[in-house]
Amino acid sequence: MRLTDIETPALVLDAAKMRANIDRMNATARRLGVALRPHLKTGKSVEVARAMTEGWSGAVTVSTLKEADEFFAAGCRDILYAVGIASNKLAHAARLTQAGAQLTLILDSVAAAEAVAAFGRETGVRLPVLIEIDSDGHRAGVQPDDAATLDAIARALANGAELAGVMTHGGGSYNSTSADGIAAHAEMERAGAVRAAEHLRAAGHACPTVSVGSTPTALFARDLAGVTELRVGVYVFFDLVMAGLGVCAPEDIAVGVLTSVIGHQAERGQLIVDAGWMALSRDRGTQGQVLDQGYGLVRDAEGGSLDDLVVVAANQEHGIVARRDGGPLDVARFPVGTLLRVLPNHACATAAQHGAYRVVDGSDEITGTWPRFGGWS
Amino acid sequence: MRLTDIETPALVLDAAKMRANIDRMNATARRLGVALRPHLKTGKSVEVARAMTEGWSGAVTVSTLKEADEFFAAGCRDILYAVGIASNKLAHAARLTQAGAQLTLILDSVAAAEAVAAFGRETGVRLPVLIEIDSDGHRAGVQPDDAATLDAIARALANGAELAGVMTHGGGSYNSTSADGIAAHAEMERAGAVRAAEHLRAAGHACPTVSVGSTPTALFARDLAGVTELRVGVYVFFDLVMAGLGVCAPEDIAVGVLTSVIGHQAERGQLIVDAGWMALSRDRGTQGQVLDQGYGLVRDAEGGSLDDLVVVAANQEHGIVARRDGGPLDVARFPVGTLLRVLPNHACATAAQHGAYRVVDGSDEITGTWPRFGGWS
Repeated sequence: MRLTDIETPALVLDAAKMRANIDRMNATARRLGVALRPHLKTGKSVEVARAMTEGWSGAVTVSTLKEADEFFAAGCRDILYAVGIASNKLAHAARLTQAGAQLTLILDSVAAAEAVAAFGRETGVRLPVLIEIDSDGHRAGVQPDDAATLDAIARALANGAELAGVMTHGGGSYNSTSADGIAAHAEMERAGAVRAAEHLRAAGHACPTVSVGSTPTALFARDLAGVTELRVGVYVFFDLVMAGLGVCAPEDIAVGVLTSVIGHQAERGQLIVDAGWMALSRDRGTQGQVLDQGYGLVRDAEGGSLDDLVVVAANQEHGIVARRDGGPLDVARFPVGTLLRVLPNHACATAAQHGAYRVVDGSDEITGTWPRFGGWS
Repeated sequence: MRLTDIETPALVLDAAKMRANIDRMNATARRLGVALRPHLKTGKSVEVARAMTEGWSGAVTVSTLKEADEFFAAGCRDILYAVGIASNKLAHAARLTQAGAQLTLILDSVAAAEAVAAFGRETGVRLPVLIEIDSDGHRAGVQPDDAATLDAIARALANGAELAGVMTHGGGSYNSTSADGIAAHAEMERAGAVRAAEHLRAAGHACPTVSVGSTPTALFARDLAGVTELRVGVYVFFDLVMAGLGVCAPEDIAVGVLTSVIGHQAERGQLIVDAGWMALSRDRGTQGQVLDQGYGLVRDAEGGSLDDLVVVAANQEHGIVARRDGGPLDVARFPVGTLLRVLPNHACATAAQHGAYRVVDGSDEITGTWPRFGGWS
């Protein structure tokens, strides 16, 4: 079966590109001397997870307990659920633990620590926990030098849970615009996590795990002294946001949405295609970058370069393709029925709109279909 | 079971509000003297579809052939697939037709008409087709007075398919900002479709169906002379974009995302919640409106009004809630574990991120769980 034999829109995964991206991150982690704990939220696919974990201990990161369920069923045992725990998820977490998973939670407040510890006392399930550190003012976490809060959380956990260490996510690196800027961000991420761990150890708490990571900081970090593991995810596919940061080239992007030309507005220089925001997502992550890619960069069906065509607008099941500069386009070059491939702004968001990957390997022949899942509970 | 008993994030549907919204649109269509052909792309749920079609002929509109499959299996027979047909979907359309569906396609070019007709000659399946009309320069369609193209499409269809009429979608009405503006848009939509039908009839073609619709134009139209059916969808739930247009009030919005407070950044006046863009969608449809609702307007768990809190930023599984005006917020009022409900910018986009509706009926008691589906083929 070939790409010309399937209905559009469809999510296409180039496995050769995915493997090259994985090889690059694996080599980076080995050079830096840290273990990889891949984040599986981008792929949400057992086959993608297998490719990402190969050669490592099998430790993984997830963004939902649904991912924990699915990947545990597929054989992953050591699972970090890297979103601050809400108490309505504790029973679900305990079920996984009692089934044999080593599920670690995160939190960043005494109140949350007390809730997890109280649950442990009531149920007898002592859940391991990492304290989230705010290394870059980006989102959640305890300030790295807020030793009093770190100690208070550790003490609260001791009474019914288990402190496993600290973690941080240098998500602010997505706003850096140079290799040096990202490298500086990586050092801020590393230093914040390590300092927090030192505060905990100085207060007498064991802190075996020091977990950091984001795809840009991992690839540009110069040293990860004191860090025990790296959490990274989007590198598996890469996307236009990463390309805009200089972390990859558009040619490295392993996923794209196959779409058909279904009409033209010749006077406006527009093609209408059957991939709207339902297939592409509403993500506009390149809007604030130097090169705004609209709702995605348009390639030919095999992924080859075209003119500078982007999806300039999207309705639910319609995309409007035009030149980025708004210039004239000879729409007759793209007759109704022409297949195109749209590279995503944000691979996690675009892939989430689809139930499966159509896998190719550098050609237009489909070598497999890999299911993916969504949802939370 | 109550809302406090489920894991977050979760999509909550208030059935009482949904029924009131449906009653309003039904009354509007009856007043205007046209048949309703509800668009089922917002709900993607058999239960929602049943509520929308009750009292009408059972005719429906869909945005994917997957919706056609699911709703045909649930008993809908007369189905309009309202996205320009790509030839790679014709075999799927024919399978539905041969199974007993009356599936109507749309297209707006001679090339597409020739493809559908050629398919009909090869397979013996003569598919009914509406010609799409561009009544407002919004997206796709033949210009209403391009009689030559209309005639050429009709002639191409005669040789292997069946011309069923014309359709248009006044999607540009989403940019109108007053009742008079939307009413004028409704008249443009009506007049364009009716003129196109008259051109076809003058050229000797039967044109039984004249189909128009969008939720704003339907609700503000003053007269629909010459129109045979109204296609509307988002009215079933309404959303903040519709509220921003004055089409509904925020209190009419029937869906919201239940979420938990998982942390605070007290100095920044921010709550961190466990609904990010995966649960809310990346839709920022109110960004260009007078009142920018961020990634959604925040209510208490039962949907009651709070301060002017919105989701100001969203990562995959994290939302950041703050005051719209950036002013100080006493985060202690919202302890870790507090449940909130986020009203969506765009109901179609937010609902699409979930696999089911948790149904309530004006209280916090869950009276049912309605599955929803996604995908294309």
